[in-house]
Amino acid sequence: MNEIMKLMDEILAFTEERDWDQFHNPVNLAKSIAIEAGELLECYQWSDRADPHAVEEELADVLNYCLQLANKLNLDPIEIVRKKMKKNALKYPVEKSKGRSDKYDQL
Amino acid sequence: MNEIMKLMDEILAFTEERDWDQFHNPVNLAKSIAIEAGELLECYQWSDRADPHAVEEELADVLNYCLQLANKLNLDPIEIVRKKMKKNALKYPVEKSKGRSDKYDQL
Amino acid sequence: MNEIMKLMDEILAFTEERDWDQFHNPVNLAKSIAIEAGELLECYQWSDRADPHAVEEELADVLNYCLQLANKLNLDPIEIVRKKMKKNALKYPVEKSKGRSDKYDQL
Amino acid sequence: MNEIMKLMDEILAFTEERDWDQFHNPVNLAKSIAIEAGELLECYQWSDRADPHAVEEELADVLNYCLQLANKLNLDPIEIVRKKMKKNALKYPVEKSKGRSDKYDQL
Repeated sequence: MNEIMKLMDEILAFTEERDWDQFHNPVNLAKSIAIEAGELLECYQWSDRADPHAVEEELADVLNYCLQLANKLNLDPIEIVRKKMKKNALKYPVEKSKGRSDKYDQL
Repeated sequence: MNEIMKLMDEILAFTEERDWDQFHNPVNLAKSIAIEAGELLECYQWSDRADPHAVEEELADVLNYCLQLANKLNLDPIEIVRKKMKKNALKYPVEKSKGRSDKYDQL
Repeated sequence: MNEIMKLMDEILAFTEERDWDQFHNPVNLAKSIAIEAGELLECYQWSDRADPHAVEEELADVLNYCLQLANKLNLDPIEIVRKKMKKNALKYPVEKSKGRSDKYDQL
Repeated sequence: MNEIMKLMDEILAFTEERDWDQFHNPVNLAKSIAIEAGELLECYQWSDRADPHAVEEELADVLNYCLQLANKLNLDPIEIVRKKMKKNALKYPVEKSKGRSDKYDQL
């Protein structure tokens, strides 16, 4: 079994042990990802330099909820990132987007 | 090489090919995670039922930026989630938190 | 009638005309505020310089949903900001917080 | 002077007294709005019922930063909401959008 599947099993065991599955429906997980993303951003609220330990913990929380949502929706986290990158490669062809941060509809 | 490291290499190649590394500093990646988390939440804005394809794409974007931030900060995404879960296990002991959605300081 | 109450009435008329009140419960409004805050942040995703017109529109969307949530909960938007500032004045006394961006529990 | 301008003056006095203007540039304010929107959403993380006092405080924080950003960019908060509503009225004509939560490009 690969590493990420093993981790997902550990997350599910953690959740089941606490009988938290009842709270972890997709909409609550989507809210949780946004909430934790806000806490991660808080590390950088007033400065570009953040406490590395705080960043690590908040990033872990975002990832944890992302993996839970992926699991809930039967999505393979690795595959969906790869698939979306293929789509992005078409939206952002190298020759047009090189060195530019513009959105695809502005290129 | 494990699956997630392979994916991270693909993401980095995508970014380097476009010379986007200049934009992808930690604070911009933290902003990007929050922005994409907002787009993911938008799938569930008015209803608990969301378009599965849209959710898949937005979740992929959140994960992509999370992996980029982890890479930038030399963090192993699997390990930080595991480490944070160990901490959460202490904050949320099974006997106290079972079946409850309260925050640890309210248990 | 003061300006902000007049605006709130206009917002409510807009919503009622479209029969959108059924969607605008507190939790959906809270999600909407976070979603629009993400779109506002997107204006600053890769640079500290943003398109002023885009910022204006996204800020307007955040404010609109904030006023709707205040109305839904019978809160006076002016009064709650004033009340919270009084609390913040105690958490951040001038002598301790002057020129520092630290959180109150770090002062 | 109208109510909201009076409140904005109080917010600015609070900020100046603490010499915080140096931190409150537009990008940091946009981040702060997203962070506080996340804290507001946290009130509704696991349930549609939230602690009214917590909601009031978090909504106040979102509004406070919104007013600061408006001030920084010389925008009248009332006028920008009104202006955006006029635009939304065209995107969401009553006959097309009545009773529907669809986005304008799906109507």
